[in-house]
Amino acid sequence: MISVGIIGGSGYTGKKLVQFCESHKKINEYKVYGFSTAGSSVYEIFPDLAGIIKNQSIINIEQLSFEHDVYFIALPHGESLNYVPGLISAGKTAIDLGGDYRLNNPDDYIEWYKYNHTSPEFLKEKIYGLADLAETNYSGSSLIANPGCYPTAVSLSLIPFIKNFSDEIITISTSAYSGTSGAGKSPKQHLLMSEMNGNAAAYNLNSHRHYPEILQTLNKFGLNSPFSFATHLLPVSVGIYSTSFIHLKSEINQEEIFSIYKQYYENSPFVRLRNQPPNLTWVTNTNFCDLGISVKGKSVIIVSAIDNLIKGASGQAIQNLNRFYGYDETEGLLDKNSILIPERVSSIV
Amino acid sequence: MISVGIIGGSGYTGKKLVQFCESHKKINEYKVYGFSTAGSSVYEIFPDLAGIIKNQSIINIEQLSFEHDVYFIALPHGESLNYVPGLISAGKTAIDLGGDYRLNNPDDYIEWYKYNHTSPEFLKEKIYGLADLAETNYSGSSLIANPGCYPTAVSLSLIPFIKNFSDEIITISTSAYSGTSGAGKSPKQHLLMSEMNGNAAAYNLNSHRHYPEILQTLNKFGLNSPFSFATHLLPVSVGIYSTSFIHLKSEINQEEIFSIYKQYYENSPFVRLRNQPPNLTWVTNTNFCDLGISVKGKSVIIVSAIDNLIKGASGQAIQNLNRFYGYDETEGLLDKNSILIPERVSSIV
Amino acid sequence: MISVGIIGGSGYTGKKLVQFCESHKKINEYKVYGFSTAGSSVYEIFPDLAGIIKNQSIINIEQLSFEHDVYFIALPHGESLNYVPGLISAGKTAIDLGGDYRLNNPDDYIEWYKYNHTSPEFLKEKIYGLADLAETNYSGSSLIANPGCYPTAVSLSLIPFIKNFSDEIITISTSAYSGTSGAGKSPKQHLLMSEMNGNAAAYNLNSHRHYPEILQTLNKFGLNSPFSFATHLLPVSVGIYSTSFIHLKSEINQEEIFSIYKQYYENSPFVRLRNQPPNLTWVTNTNFCDLGISVKGKSVIIVSAIDNLIKGASGQAIQNLNRFYGYDETEGLLDKNSILIPERVSSIV
Amino acid sequence: MISVGIIGGSGYTGKKLVQFCESHKKINEYKVYGFSTAGSSVYEIFPDLAGIIKNQSIINIEQLSFEHDVYFIALPHGESLNYVPGLISAGKTAIDLGGDYRLNNPDDYIEWYKYNHTSPEFLKEKIYGLADLAETNYSGSSLIANPGCYPTAVSLSLIPFIKNFSDEIITISTSAYSGTSGAGKSPKQHLLMSEMNGNAAAYNLNSHRHYPEILQTLNKFGLNSPFSFATHLLPVSVGIYSTSFIHLKSEINQEEIFSIYKQYYENSPFVRLRNQPPNLTWVTNTNFCDLGISVKGKSVIIVSAIDNLIKGASGQAIQNLNRFYGYDETEGLLDKNSILIPERVSSIV
Repeated sequence: MISVGIIGGSGYTGKKLVQFCESHKKINEYKVYGFSTAGSSVYEIFPDLAGIIKNQSIINIEQLSFEHDVYFIALPHGESLNYVPGLISAGKTAIDLGGDYRLNNPDDYIEWYKYNHTSPEFLKEKIYGLADLAETNYSGSSLIANPGCYPTAVSLSLIPFIKNFSDEIITISTSAYSGTSGAGKSPKQHLLMSEMNGNAAAYNLNSHRHYPEILQTLNKFGLNSPFSFATHLLPVSVGIYSTSFIHLKSEINQEEIFSIYKQYYENSPFVRLRNQPPNLTWVTNTNFCDLGISVKGKSVIIVSAIDNLIKGASGQAIQNLNRFYGYDETEGLLDKNSILIPERVSSIV
Repeated sequence: MISVGIIGGSGYTGKKLVQFCESHKKINEYKVYGFSTAGSSVYEIFPDLAGIIKNQSIINIEQLSFEHDVYFIALPHGESLNYVPGLISAGKTAIDLGGDYRLNNPDDYIEWYKYNHTSPEFLKEKIYGLADLAETNYSGSSLIANPGCYPTAVSLSLIPFIKNFSDEIITISTSAYSGTSGAGKSPKQHLLMSEMNGNAAAYNLNSHRHYPEILQTLNKFGLNSPFSFATHLLPVSVGIYSTSFIHLKSEINQEEIFSIYKQYYENSPFVRLRNQPPNLTWVTNTNFCDLGISVKGKSVIIVSAIDNLIKGASGQAIQNLNRFYGYDETEGLLDKNSILIPERVSSIV
Repeated sequence: MISVGIIGGSGYTGKKLVQFCESHKKINEYKVYGFSTAGSSVYEIFPDLAGIIKNQSIINIEQLSFEHDVYFIALPHGESLNYVPGLISAGKTAIDLGGDYRLNNPDDYIEWYKYNHTSPEFLKEKIYGLADLAETNYSGSSLIANPGCYPTAVSLSLIPFIKNFSDEIITISTSAYSGTSGAGKSPKQHLLMSEMNGNAAAYNLNSHRHYPEILQTLNKFGLNSPFSFATHLLPVSVGIYSTSFIHLKSEINQEEIFSIYKQYYENSPFVRLRNQPPNLTWVTNTNFCDLGISVKGKSVIIVSAIDNLIKGASGQAIQNLNRFYGYDETEGLLDKNSILIPERVSSIV
Repeated sequence: MISVGIIGGSGYTGKKLVQFCESHKKINEYKVYGFSTAGSSVYEIFPDLAGIIKNQSIINIEQLSFEHDVYFIALPHGESLNYVPGLISAGKTAIDLGGDYRLNNPDDYIEWYKYNHTSPEFLKEKIYGLADLAETNYSGSSLIANPGCYPTAVSLSLIPFIKNFSDEIITISTSAYSGTSGAGKSPKQHLLMSEMNGNAAAYNLNSHRHYPEILQTLNKFGLNSPFSFATHLLPVSVGIYSTSFIHLKSEINQEEIFSIYKQYYENSPFVRLRNQPPNLTWVTNTNFCDLGISVKGKSVIIVSAIDNLIKGASGQAIQNLNRFYGYDETEGLLDKNSILIPERVSSIV
């Protein structure tokens, strides 16, 4: 049994972490730390959780101690730098849901995040926690950089293809749409219902901080072709829907691609291969990533749907915790007695 | 352990029943029966449930047998009449989620449902299953008429008041809004996203079939004043938000009212008293009913929020099953290890 | 031809005023005044209006002069007090879209608006501009208090009834829902798409500032029974949908009520009587108020739908301007060559 | 002055045609023809238009005569074949809003529309009506094939680029999202508010009938590189938002691209170049197409936003009518006295 500290637990992601920690059988205690919400109860901040989680006061982050085994950090970009080095030195496990340790190259932080990284030694050491990959290795570090929401959706959809066909790829282009919760709980005019209902809009074209993160992952798996990426706001609260276009040098057989994906994700309980493009609502409120693949001639289109707050943040963080500690990978993430684990979803549905 | 048959399990309500049965610890087997969906798998009909529930084929209703202990019936109004008498005669437990056995007076079916009731003897015998009421008595019958969605939201919000102040009431008026899933999964033009986004509309004014059902309940608890009721479509998928206006003969102390509600629902794990008007999203995807009460002078306004498919249908049906069999009332309805049951939400939050 | 100054022209209401002024044939010039947006162009603040209106810079309110004939004031409550007395003294016409001059009794401002009114002499003098009423008299003052959005929807729906049946009324209760634009363009957490999608919530129960405004109007037309009022947020951008419940002492004939309403609004081009409850989208983006009436026994339910930013604010302000100056009442408000004015919508549709 | 027949005028597109015809100064008469709605009044079918358009009965299509000068045809695909040859033979002008005459090659109809074209001689003769292109030539035919909604948004965004840089392009990939009204007014389950709220979903991947239409246009303007296209449902009623990714062989200067687009659309009153990605709501309810361009290295991303029912259907049809007859191109499409026509939106805003 472990004790958990949730640093920055009053945002949209923090709330989901609280819920997962409440029902996780290996977590016997968790505490929530915040800034502006310190002193409030979790029932005040999350009124919908009354009667679902135990009530507790949110503690001021300044009173953070080393009493816990694991620390989830869900803070705005740049702020994890203030906590991670100390936690790791103290022998704690840190799972950072922000972007401060995701990239490998410190220079990328200057270009994309506009700051100088103050603990670049951890960039090499950290585990980049794409929790559905068999390749992700949880030994050798106690710092897990939880992937970004877009990178999770996009990487899971492209890695098997790139691993097998990198030399056949001419270009890849990914169009991704996110619900507004991805922009956080702080009120901003362009995120108002009055602005977003009936709306859609691209943003940060050619400049989104998730671009270098995705590219780093795709390159690691063999991509050697140009990759382009566009992000948009979708008029919904939660979810990411990404569509990737792969132009190929020659035709590839659809059956072959399906077979490769099926095999690659055979042991991944949270990746579901679909025989049609998934609906976004199939994955909202879950830790699933649903993939749909369409092949015609030299054109391959792969769509990927996740819940940005769960699979793209808190759910994957719990999954990383589970894999790190050797717990059942689905512990706390499926709301039942794990009856499905043995069979999984082995066929394409 | 019991075996369950879900008759009409491919609609929005049926889907929730399937999910609840999957995780309910006292249900060791359930089967799904349908008409047009017979032969399909539940994964085909509910693609989002792949990997969450076990896959199974939907059985043609015509092959329905008496193999189960309990039958949930989620069919269009009028169709339960074909199944309930047989099931009860065979000694089975029937929980009807339709309206065919909710009213006590057979004549009301002619006026409000436009048909002649064919088994009126069961109207007296049945248990009207408002599952959050201590008064609901589960002995003496094996037919439970599960309340309608609007009647659940409205009755839970008004019963404590009426029980205590019936002679003080001049009039009650209730304005209720429902998400579109309340109108079912059959496609109709006025329910299209193209029609409903940005929209709202009253319907069935002075003629909704839930009016006599609510009135029957309120009268039972002592109402002797005029009651008026209006239903509307809300541009959301799920949820009911009801606002009741009570005009009083004399002023009543707000503290007294809160105290009465608190005491009345002291042992109800799914009714949450709020110190502010609840948000609808606080209850969606849950079996909770959230109540907010405002008093000023001789005006009392009580708002009530539920998920129409859960508390207003399937969740309450499971709660009725639990109470009928003497199981823990929350079994299957809270997605964790019941840690909260002992304490409940006893204070107003 | 007149010249118009729009004070506070960069909010949701101001934008609509700009659009109406652009196409109004009697307005030969208009300028926009703002605080934080001063110096920006209207194309920057309203990018969608590029190519639809002429571009111009927003002028700092501090540079406001008496150069215009008419001033629309669309500022937060309390701020009109700083402009109206000076404008009126200078012989200008002021149409105030805020609440600072709507109430007749200065004491009401202390109770409901929490401030001491600094120019109470104008409260008596002002014209309360319910522009669809034949009774509204535009002589004797050059200050028009434009009604609130809720008061417009509710008053138009109830006045004909109250005028004719005040002694038959036991109680009136009104449930009204507003799109989020009614709460303005300043970002607030509870107005985010992330919070409001799929949501609905009552607010300011028994304490909304529009309550005394509605009551003042209804009393003026003869109401002598209790009136109760509840406001809610609707998950849409624009529109108000109000449902009023009237409990009667004795039954009233539906035909008679329809006939009274038809006659009362016979010359009102913007009030449409419906033979069914209107949809909210029938009136959004228009200056119409649609009414639906249902009668059964001693219960009357009247629904009313308007666009909160147009009929509930800017459109009615233009209509007031038209009536004040004796222009065609629909000038600038119907986007065509007034072909329909002669016939109007005389029958119930 | 001309007389107009609207064939299939009771759908979403037909409704907009009715509104445009009502206010168009050169149309002195229009009649509406329908199948299932024949005999109803336009007020019954479009209740929101009461008081905005003149009421009239919808005539059965079987009673269609040659009394009009121009016929708009807004019917399901395949049905225009029954009307166009006769109308053209009779010397009438036909503007077909369906897809039956858009493609040049009759064989494409077998592959993409699954029927044999019965009047292929018109495929060569017809004018493909991309109304914002200077190149579109309205002489030599009286049959105008109005472009599809996706093809309008995508073609307008890519043509200037392709005309100038075709040899620099490696691949183009376009991700496009449409509001649900694009799928029509006939009720289908997947279009319900209950299904679409909070949702998004790709559909017809690699098989959408607009793919060959777009390709035909892009090829005409010089495209000689692979083009890929994916369509999605957006949880809104109206609008298309398309994002095109162009991978280049070498870097291109952003200023140069802006300059080319600005010059190309200099005389197009309905194409607005933006200095940021447009919001979808900037164009809904208008005939505008808003374009945003982002360039970084060898990656160009161009977003395009239109109202699918107006610029993507009825509005462009009116614009085609205007250009065909030599009327002012904006007649009937801007709701004011054309004050803006001389200046246009010549700069990027």
